[in-house]
Amino acid sequence: MLTYSFSDIGSDSLYEYLYKCIKNDILAGVLSPGDRLPSKRSFAKHLNISTITIENAYAQLLAEGYIYSIPKKGYYAADIAAGPAPAPASPSQEPVPEQGEETYFADFTSSQTHPDTFPFSIWAKLMREVIGSRSPDLMKNPPSGGIFPLRQAIAGHLKEFRGMDVKPQQIIVGAGTEYLYGLLIQLLGHGKVYGVEDPGYQKISAIYKSNHVACRHIPMDKHGICIGKLEELGADIVHISPSHHFPTGIVTPISRRYELLGWAAASDARYIIEDDYDCEFRFMGKPIPSLQSIDVMEKVIYMNTFTKTLASTIRISYMVLPGRLAEQFRETMGFYSCTVSNFEQYTLARFLADGHFERHINRMRNFYHGQRDLLLGYLKNSPLSPHITIMEEDAGLHFLMCVDTSVPDGAVLQKAKSLGLRLTSLSQYYYEKGHAAKQETAGNGRENCPREEHSATEHIFIMNYSSIHPAHMEEAIARLCQAFGVR
Amino acid sequence: MLTYSFSDIGSDSLYEYLYKCIKNDILAGVLSPGDRLPSKRSFAKHLNISTITIENAYAQLLAEGYIYSIPKKGYYAADIAAGPAPAPASPSQEPVPEQGEETYFADFTSSQTHPDTFPFSIWAKLMREVIGSRSPDLMKNPPSGGIFPLRQAIAGHLKEFRGMDVKPQQIIVGAGTEYLYGLLIQLLGHGKVYGVEDPGYQKISAIYKSNHVACRHIPMDKHGICIGKLEELGADIVHISPSHHFPTGIVTPISRRYELLGWAAASDARYIIEDDYDCEFRFMGKPIPSLQSIDVMEKVIYMNTFTKTLASTIRISYMVLPGRLAEQFRETMGFYSCTVSNFEQYTLARFLADGHFERHINRMRNFYHGQRDLLLGYLKNSPLSPHITIMEEDAGLHFLMCVDTSVPDGAVLQKAKSLGLRLTSLSQYYYEKGHAAKQETAGNGRENCPREEHSATEHIFIMNYSSIHPAHMEEAIARLCQAFGVR
Repeated sequence: MLTYSFSDIGSDSLYEYLYKCIKNDILAGVLSPGDRLPSKRSFAKHLNISTITIENAYAQLLAEGYIYSIPKKGYYAADIAAGPAPAPASPSQEPVPEQGEETYFADFTSSQTHPDTFPFSIWAKLMREVIGSRSPDLMKNPPSGGIFPLRQAIAGHLKEFRGMDVKPQQIIVGAGTEYLYGLLIQLLGHGKVYGVEDPGYQKISAIYKSNHVACRHIPMDKHGICIGKLEELGADIVHISPSHHFPTGIVTPISRRYELLGWAAASDARYIIEDDYDCEFRFMGKPIPSLQSIDVMEKVIYMNTFTKTLASTIRISYMVLPGRLAEQFRETMGFYSCTVSNFEQYTLARFLADGHFERHINRMRNFYHGQRDLLLGYLKNSPLSPHITIMEEDAGLHFLMCVDTSVPDGAVLQKAKSLGLRLTSLSQYYYEKGHAAKQETAGNGRENCPREEHSATEHIFIMNYSSIHPAHMEEAIARLCQAFGVR
Repeated sequence: MLTYSFSDIGSDSLYEYLYKCIKNDILAGVLSPGDRLPSKRSFAKHLNISTITIENAYAQLLAEGYIYSIPKKGYYAADIAAGPAPAPASPSQEPVPEQGEETYFADFTSSQTHPDTFPFSIWAKLMREVIGSRSPDLMKNPPSGGIFPLRQAIAGHLKEFRGMDVKPQQIIVGAGTEYLYGLLIQLLGHGKVYGVEDPGYQKISAIYKSNHVACRHIPMDKHGICIGKLEELGADIVHISPSHHFPTGIVTPISRRYELLGWAAASDARYIIEDDYDCEFRFMGKPIPSLQSIDVMEKVIYMNTFTKTLASTIRISYMVLPGRLAEQFRETMGFYSCTVSNFEQYTLARFLADGHFERHINRMRNFYHGQRDLLLGYLKNSPLSPHITIMEEDAGLHFLMCVDTSVPDGAVLQKAKSLGLRLTSLSQYYYEKGHAAKQETAGNGRENCPREEHSATEHIFIMNYSSIHPAHMEEAIARLCQAFGVR
């Protein structure tokens, strides 16, 4: 039987490595066209790995035409000289993982929502009613910003939940915040300099770069983004999450908020994009008013999303534009079609207006609270317990875990990956190493961390618990101990 | 009772004009806070206009806080000094038209789909089944390009319908072609020069400009875009609809297609974006193979959409990237979330795979065929008949109507608007007047047009019949005669 050694696996996952080995053997002619590959089960036993790993590797090879399958017989090496076999056309076939897509036993980086928590029956009922009763409206092209009832319902939610006074006309609904960032660049101008938080959510910076606009990484202190640095680096637009910064958890206090508004008011070109992505999931204390709600100079663009609260796979987000910008949007970009289907806009409008959303948020807050407590409980009872400090656990869907270890972060992450755990460390969220070094005085919670001999941002891990299945938690923590070499 | 004269209405629609009159009276204090406005019905009778016009004007004033309503009592002027009244918060209220949004008796420019033609019951059934059976998959974040079963089903459809051999991995699903254009600019580069057809669909050029990339208007001859001009104007990427150009209806013959591929092959930077937006609605003849299907140099990006075939308010489009670009997309832009909700992706995948889409297309083709014949019949029996020549009626959702008239296009369109008809003329689709003048030798069908004394592109009107209600057609044609001053 085919035998491969996994000693040189490097940073690949098991299935990637296996896929490459077999592909290379086919390309090199070690496996000839028509050669039968081992059955998944016997191959897994032979190599001492799981059948799922074999399955994933075979699926990838199949998708790329290196092998073909004969139902109830097995898998065979394809004739590569004749060009790769065409992709399978039967839509009944299982989806095949794309290169780069991987599955983990426990993913501490995913914001994917649990199937168990989505209100399927209410959603299905509302969707049915919407389809049943609103057919003419469903086919009517909405304004660029979205259907009016949804924008009205969102305005109502913002009033109720965030104390914000917003007109429906200021609200622009779009298929995810990533899409809305792209619209904002078009609205505010390609010639502007955009400032993003360092450390910060890397996708934001990636989007600015992909849209070919100047993007500066602005360092943070313990109160949030450094205003002096905004001036120094010449930022026009600053993109921040003052209510709960990712990943440090910093909450920008009211004094800094006013300073930020003052900075923005000093020039016509300046704007603040306030990303309030997880304000609904605060566990303790009274929320600080949004920047938008204390802005009287029309300088704040407020953003929020239903992808975190409802489902990451229902793509509905929105932004609230200041009156002047809303007008400009309508004039210069009103030709764009709204990117969210009417069916889902009307369904969500009902979901909000009928009070389902508020109930759902409360349920989810309890659910995540439970997730967090369960995970913290397992951690406390694990051999890791004496070596860790937990920080920033009172808001959002993640906490920080500071570990007293001498193993470099990279090695921990790689070991965790090989054990089926996906993990990130705080140091990975710094764009510029200089900013990480300065963080010793910053608010990453490190002041609570008992050991001081390591660098400021090393050994702090981001633990997003939202998508970890409760049944996997105990085992995930056991593997985590293994990743840190603690028993 | 309030009385306004409509003699100075200018280019406004009736409701816009009325809205402005009342607003001005409130701002000027002619109407004091608390003054009751006339009831819709009596006001309509008094001004001799329709109640819908009054309704729209009131709705706009209400949305902007100039008036407020007391249920079962009526409408009252608001206290403007105290700031406009807050927007109404009850989501049960009717959607209010936004500024710029207008309603017409018959809109010959709209691609909005008819509520009667959408397969609501099948869609609802599939959606219910999808929600019922696939809950874990529904919550799983799909790859950037979309869920695999949908891409597989699209590949199957392209094979069946267009004879195209495409791997699901090459397909990128997104919330509308407008969104996909934005992705393509990021993929192909902001530094490239984009060429668009002149005349052409203005939104495409608007999107390139909004994304701040160089955009050149390339003139067309009777076979499509002029390749010499592409070279001359330094275009790198050309964006065309060779199978059915909008609005002229030109179908690019196979010889020009090969020339285009030859042009693209001459430089690494060159690509062709093939927009095949209405290939499903050809009434006669065998479709010419898509450029994509005869491209062996990986130079063609194929685009199509379900917004034309299924519903303009379900935002699902796709593009087929050449293998190399698909790889590049995955590497550099794979971080983007797919913009279409999983619920609709799975529903559409089922709709395609189960054969509903094919049946729907056939039904729609017949429906549009009927719409066209009905409209042509009314035209033929109208006083306009001796003055018009119909062209390009065998494909797509519109035909061209060349009118023997001395009234300038602008005056016709304005008159039509005042009669509740929305209409566009061919001359409006030219970006550069020079290109329009040269069109005398081009394929706008003018060679079939009997009268030659007017300029090449004047007096040709685009008649998109897809959204005109059959019950409105006769009256619409009567009003059209009036717009042309023909009785």
